[in-house]
Amino acid sequence: MSDAAASPAVAEDEAALATPFVKCLVRLIRAQDSYGSWEGKPDAELLADFIITRQQRRAIPIIGDPDPDVLWRLDMFYTAVGLAIEERSGLMASPMMEMSHEGFGRVLFTSGRLVVLSKTLRDVHRFGFETYRKLAEAGTKLVDDALAAIEAYPDLARA
Amino acid sequence: MSDAAASPAVAEDEAALATPFVKCLVRLIRAQDSYGSWEGKPDAELLADFIITRQQRRAIPIIGDPDPDVLWRLDMFYTAVGLAIEERSGLMASPMMEMSHEGFGRVLFTSGRLVVLSKTLRDVHRFGFETYRKLAEAGTKLVDDALAAIEAYPDLARA
Repeated sequence: MSDAAASPAVAEDEAALATPFVKCLVRLIRAQDSYGSWEGKPDAELLADFIITRQQRRAIPIIGDPDPDVLWRLDMFYTAVGLAIEERSGLMASPMMEMSHEGFGRVLFTSGRLVVLSKTLRDVHRFGFETYRKLAEAGTKLVDDALAAIEAYPDLARA
Repeated sequence: MSDAAASPAVAEDEAALATPFVKCLVRLIRAQDSYGSWEGKPDAELLADFIITRQQRRAIPIIGDPDPDVLWRLDMFYTAVGLAIEERSGLMASPMMEMSHEGFGRVLFTSGRLVVLSKTLRDVHRFGFETYRKLAEAGTKLVDDALAAIEAYPDLARA
C-alpha cells in the first residue's frame, strides 16, 4: 500500500520538475556551481531546500532577520521568473526587490513602461513550497500573469 | 559691484525655493524635525547640504560606501518627487530604489500598471546640485515627466 501511494507522488514530482519554469530555476542554480560540486546531484536534490512541509513551516521562527539561505532561494526563485518571462516573450523583465528586516516586501518586474508583475512578499522567513508541484505552479502562474500583461499592453512593454 | 552681482543670484534662489517641488521637499524635511530644532531655520539653510559646487563635487571621493547623509538626501529628494507627483495627479506613485555599494543604482516609480518614472542613479556619492535653481529644475523635470506619462496612459496608471 505504501508503494501504491508513493508512486503517484513520485510521478507528480517528476512532472513538476519537467515544467519549463522549474527547468529554468534548475539551470540558474547550476550556473552558480563554479566548482562542479553539484554535477552529480539530481535536480530534485538541488531544489530540496525549496520544499518545506507545513510542520517545518510552522517551526521556523519569524523573529530576527530572514536567513541568508532563504534570501538566496527567494532571489533564485524570482530571478527564474524573470528569465522564464524573457524566454517566452523575448522581453527583458527586470526585477526589483525591496524588503524590510521583518520579512515583508515587494517584488516588481518591469518591461519598458509596463509593470509586468507586482507581488507583495510576506513571511519571507518561511519562503518555501509544500511540494515540487506547488513550486512549479507558483512560478508558472507568475510567468503566465506577466505574459498576459505583456500581451494586453504590447506597445507599452516595448516602450 | 559685488552687491549688484549678488542680487540676481539671491532672486534666483528665492524663485527656486518658491517652486512647488522645493516646497514639497522642505515640507518633507521639516516633518522629520521631531524636536523642533529646525523651527527657526530658513528653508535655504535646511537645504544647504543639497548644494554642492563643482569644486566640492570633485573633492568627494567615490570609493567606499556612499555617506549615510548623502543617502538620506537622495531618499528625501526622490520621496519629494513621489509626493509632488501625488499632489498633482492624485495618484500614489510608489518609489522603489535599488543601489549597489559602488553608488550605482536605479529608482523606479510605479502607479498601477504604469512605470511612471525610471531613472538610473550614478555617482551617488556626489549627489547634489550646483544651485537651488538646479535642484528645483531637476525635481520639477522628473515630476513633469511622470505627469506626462500618467496623462499618456491614464487607464494604466489607475489599473
